[in-house]
Amino acid sequence: MEKKGLLVVVSGFAGSGKGTLMKELVKRYKTYALSVSATTRNPRPGEVDGREYYFKTTEEFEQMIEEDAFVEYARYVNNYYGTPKKYVFDQLEAGNDVILEIEIQGALQIQKKFPEALLLFVTPPDAITLKNRLVGRGTEDAATIDLRLARASEESQGIEEYDYIVVNDDLEECVLTMHSIIQNEKYKTFRNLSFINEIRDGLKSFAKGD
Amino acid sequence: MEKKGLLVVVSGFAGSGKGTLMKELVKRYKTYALSVSATTRNPRPGEVDGREYYFKTTEEFEQMIEEDAFVEYARYVNNYYGTPKKYVFDQLEAGNDVILEIEIQGALQIQKKFPEALLLFVTPPDAITLKNRLVGRGTEDAATIDLRLARASEESQGIEEYDYIVVNDDLEECVLTMHSIIQNEKYKTFRNLSFINEIRDGLKSFAKGD
Repeated sequence: MEKKGLLVVVSGFAGSGKGTLMKELVKRYKTYALSVSATTRNPRPGEVDGREYYFKTTEEFEQMIEEDAFVEYARYVNNYYGTPKKYVFDQLEAGNDVILEIEIQGALQIQKKFPEALLLFVTPPDAITLKNRLVGRGTEDAATIDLRLARASEESQGIEEYDYIVVNDDLEECVLTMHSIIQNEKYKTFRNLSFINEIRDGLKSFAKGD
Repeated sequence: MEKKGLLVVVSGFAGSGKGTLMKELVKRYKTYALSVSATTRNPRPGEVDGREYYFKTTEEFEQMIEEDAFVEYARYVNNYYGTPKKYVFDQLEAGNDVILEIEIQGALQIQKKFPEALLLFVTPPDAITLKNRLVGRGTEDAATIDLRLARASEESQGIEEYDYIVVNDDLEECVLTMHSIIQNEKYKTFRNLSFINEIRDGLKSFAKGD
């Protein structure tokens, strides 16, 4: 069966808990590698180059774009954010499943360039829970919450482009579901064409009396 | 999330153990309903109408074809075999997952008529194991085994049309994998459009300040 790792894209609303889910996946199962993005924004206190982000100058980043060194990238406000190819490809080749936490624009770039990628969208069980989680954080003012809700509303337009929608109601259950969705994906026929051909060739040779 | 049951088609080589797998699924998980086929062939000793098959006369069967009462049917040699719609639809409506064990021609009919059906193909780990299992039964002569191998070779041409290929190396593992593939399918975005729309409408109303 398929030995190469899987490219997995995880998106979700702010407040969906996707960050925690991904940390749990990586902590529990050694098959997962979490990709680190590159960015031109300045490091915040406590951020370490190569851990939170690879910090790049605009010139370095644009040079990498030139060299087609990203699986996806985007510009938000005045900064670039992107996923460097090398780490992703190395991990996939080594048989690890690479998880990218990216927003919908990046997710759709990935889907176009790598149709074999698996796209998961994480959501709270309903809109009111999502609102309550955003409000409940208590860290943002009303205007920011409204902005986030408007943004969530915008993001929700693209959910159908994802392969699976996962409801994060119970963290424990959700981690197990995500893990099993990702691992089951490896049984897809289109990912096992050489295995199928081997069986086919074997049967053909027997039928010929080999 | 999706409440309706799933239509699941299971095919596989003779010797793949698909019959045992399906019996285990139905025995362990009450979500599964095994569909009983209709046929015009004569009952064999011990077979009970409505358990192994619904036994029909050719006239009755052809009447049902006229009435579009089958999800799929086929004629082998001089007999008809088919899956009656009523039972399948009733079970799906009740939220049960209906498993049909049918051959590739029937499976492709289902896929065309019900694109939302899930198609699984069960295989031994490799061609030599398949051959050994057929030989190992010790119940067939060499000519019959050759015929079965030729038939398996023919069937293997259609495997890519299935969604998943499941290797039955270890029965216990395979039952769990099949169960989890089927249940995860319910998280597919295209199966949850009304759920997605609810979230979307909720977010839109918050953004409007409702």
